[in-house]
Amino acid sequence: MIRVTIWNEFRHEKTEPVKSVYPEGMHRAIAAGISADDLDITCVALDDPEQGLPEEILENTDVLLWWGHWAHRELSDELVNRIRQRVLAGMGLIVLHSGHDSKVFKSVLGTSCSLRWRQVGEKERLWVTAPAHPIARNVPRTFALPHEEMYGEPFDIPDDAKIIFMSWFQGGDVFRSGVTFQRGNGKIFYFAPGHETFPTYYDKNILTVIGNAVRWAAPVMIEPKQCIQCQPAENFTKEP
Amino acid sequence: MIRVTIWNEFRHEKTEPVKSVYPEGMHRAIAAGISADDLDITCVALDDPEQGLPEEILENTDVLLWWGHWAHRELSDELVNRIRQRVLAGMGLIVLHSGHDSKVFKSVLGTSCSLRWRQVGEKERLWVTAPAHPIARNVPRTFALPHEEMYGEPFDIPDDAKIIFMSWFQGGDVFRSGVTFQRGNGKIFYFAPGHETFPTYYDKNILTVIGNAVRWAAPVMIEPKQCIQCQPAENFTKEP
Amino acid sequence: MIRVTIWNEFRHEKTEPVKSVYPEGMHRAIAAGISADDLDITCVALDDPEQGLPEEILENTDVLLWWGHWAHRELSDELVNRIRQRVLAGMGLIVLHSGHDSKVFKSVLGTSCSLRWRQVGEKERLWVTAPAHPIARNVPRTFALPHEEMYGEPFDIPDDAKIIFMSWFQGGDVFRSGVTFQRGNGKIFYFAPGHETFPTYYDKNILTVIGNAVRWAAPVMIEPKQCIQCQPAENFTKEP
Amino acid sequence: MIRVTIWNEFRHEKTEPVKSVYPEGMHRAIAAGISADDLDITCVALDDPEQGLPEEILENTDVLLWWGHWAHRELSDELVNRIRQRVLAGMGLIVLHSGHDSKVFKSVLGTSCSLRWRQVGEKERLWVTAPAHPIARNVPRTFALPHEEMYGEPFDIPDDAKIIFMSWFQGGDVFRSGVTFQRGNGKIFYFAPGHETFPTYYDKNILTVIGNAVRWAAPVMIEPKQCIQCQPAENFTKEP
Repeated sequence: MIRVTIWNEFRHEKTEPVKSVYPEGMHRAIAAGISADDLDITCVALDDPEQGLPEEILENTDVLLWWGHWAHRELSDELVNRIRQRVLAGMGLIVLHSGHDSKVFKSVLGTSCSLRWRQVGEKERLWVTAPAHPIARNVPRTFALPHEEMYGEPFDIPDDAKIIFMSWFQGGDVFRSGVTFQRGNGKIFYFAPGHETFPTYYDKNILTVIGNAVRWAAPVMIEPKQCIQCQPAENFTKEP
Repeated sequence: MIRVTIWNEFRHEKTEPVKSVYPEGMHRAIAAGISADDLDITCVALDDPEQGLPEEILENTDVLLWWGHWAHRELSDELVNRIRQRVLAGMGLIVLHSGHDSKVFKSVLGTSCSLRWRQVGEKERLWVTAPAHPIARNVPRTFALPHEEMYGEPFDIPDDAKIIFMSWFQGGDVFRSGVTFQRGNGKIFYFAPGHETFPTYYDKNILTVIGNAVRWAAPVMIEPKQCIQCQPAENFTKEP
Repeated sequence: MIRVTIWNEFRHEKTEPVKSVYPEGMHRAIAAGISADDLDITCVALDDPEQGLPEEILENTDVLLWWGHWAHRELSDELVNRIRQRVLAGMGLIVLHSGHDSKVFKSVLGTSCSLRWRQVGEKERLWVTAPAHPIARNVPRTFALPHEEMYGEPFDIPDDAKIIFMSWFQGGDVFRSGVTFQRGNGKIFYFAPGHETFPTYYDKNILTVIGNAVRWAAPVMIEPKQCIQCQPAENFTKEP
Repeated sequence: MIRVTIWNEFRHEKTEPVKSVYPEGMHRAIAAGISADDLDITCVALDDPEQGLPEEILENTDVLLWWGHWAHRELSDELVNRIRQRVLAGMGLIVLHSGHDSKVFKSVLGTSCSLRWRQVGEKERLWVTAPAHPIARNVPRTFALPHEEMYGEPFDIPDDAKIIFMSWFQGGDVFRSGVTFQRGNGKIFYFAPGHETFPTYYDKNILTVIGNAVRWAAPVMIEPKQCIQCQPAENFTKEP
């Protein structure tokens, strides 16, 4: 059983036009869409107690999904640091759409994670670039979303990004729209589609990708990273 | 002075329509286009003696450019191996367009280097993804070629490809169209634009990229790789 | 059930002192050591028909293990090419010890794979550098082999080597002794310990590593790489 | 002229035994050791105004060197963020020894950068793993430091670390002791030797490495990363 926590800012959904698209919030749409017997899913939001991630929830999360936008700066630095430590210890992290600019994503990658954007509802076509990767399982080699926000290159991420998806946009742009990283013991997946005014999180292919990613990002082991240097290392000099 | 050798298959140019576009051959168009005081350029072709690369030319080349297509299989395995050894020793290698399927490129990368393609003369738009890379110097952040062959993902190359350019195609495809690698001591750049029926190698931006790449790929040092293990390594056990 | 084929040159074992250490051959020692219900293991040798890998065996192998040394050059180029195609299609490949210099390994990586060596039977200490990697599961963070051949840096491999193990040698050398790669759809693991005169393939930790690696390298999917470009790609221009 | 700023915590040097080894501070020892006509070097310290890096110094620095240890936590988060932005914009960063645990290094890499250590003054032997890299120019393929602090694997850094040096320690450990990264436009080099009680920064080879690294890390261009997404991107749909 993989313990999945879907964190959503859950502010956009409180007014139109987003309210009509996701009346229960994007987190609950995703939860319903990826629901399965091997997943134990919890939905939390920024305005929940302790910004949705008290110790007992975070420390019992195997894979954390993250959707944020307007309120990136509201997140406490202390919580950002706890999340980063948990990722380095082994928790999987799946960052969605505008989460590229979240403190959480930037704190684990170190780069600005900046990109170019254009919100005109143009067509996006995704391409699988790593067909044998578990995240691409049962996903067509190419598929289109009729309306999405354009996210375009250059995308300021580290060079060890493993590219699983690349996107084409009607307006002339391209983007590494699905990329993985490992940081410490934790696996990270960034997936670009998901603008709040479009029904992207009801799309069958998008949900397949997210479901695959959850299983891929599940921890092999969880072990805090910082204590390793608390004491001097053993000396093998006297060994025969 | 960087010693540059431009190797061209030089078969397409012998009949129309390519003959009209590149009457002297693509190699000579590139040579004229990147000509500069710090470059000592030699043009060779498949039908020259020893397939254009006798020992005395290859061993005096700092950066080798490669354009091939129809005759990939004609290249002798012995020559492919000599070129590979020279790259591993430190020679720069710049592979152009259909050279992705050459024995030379596949032998240094190991993968199939396969891709998808469509030749309908559609528009290609290139994007710089690594703006601070020397190969992108003085190149606009985006620029278009009105007619090019489409090369599309998935592109079967190793994961350490550093992406300098990505391309958008009118017909819906995307491609990592400018990527670098290091193999042994040698630097490698693959650059996708350059279909023989289009005047791509007269384009100012394309020539800037190729000129930059030649200087980037120039050897730091040249040292054969194989002899390193001819004799047992020194043992430091007795050292104080 | 993972279909595993262990290919061994099986020449060293025909004379002393290796004969006494591995009377049935290293391939059979490894097979016995990793034997488990989820593995269907076949042992083959260079002197078997078709150098041990006729079409029906290779095409039914999920993970191929490779130990070779004296006879690297005897392997037919045609077989090397078939193995490389099978790896790119998705077969896992585990290359052991002196297999670093095999045609198979060099053909999938492209580099010389050269290294420094010293055969004095010194102590080797291995360190796990990627503790959350499946190949390191149930392996101590560090362990020693009392006698091994020294393989030392510089090791001429591509930059995308993911380092799972690093080794320390008594005589003063260090080595990336366990590294993974992906090429095409296939996963590759190189593991350095295993000199023929030492009982390395009876060591519990070494066998745990090899068993883990077999499961890690098992294919997600197998699909030949070359046919992808046999026909022009679909054009999406007319799409609404 | 490369504008180099050497930042040193400069606390250890105020008491013995470090005072005797580096009476003017490690920063000044390094500055004297790498002094050259193409370098314009400034030395600053934590206890200088604005922790040594007021705007006018940082914004006029091409390459920043960093040695810190006891007082990592004293560094203001605001300064850490300004340094990180400057690195992403293009400034080179060279992090020395215990700087692995500095806020600056961890903020640009995202990982814990934790390692194992042992301070018994044992011998360290360094190996060049990337002989054609500019940082290894004029450095012997291997050289020893008679006494150093041991820093050992696992070293929690991202997978795109390009390894230039690896170290062997008398007590049985190994370490990736010289590694490069690129983050945004900025080049980063971490170099492990340099414990405060040993005369490491007077060693000719160590100084050659640091001097090479300064020139390698000098910016190709400096351009802030964050503003790129301040406005919507141009739409090329209407283009012919």
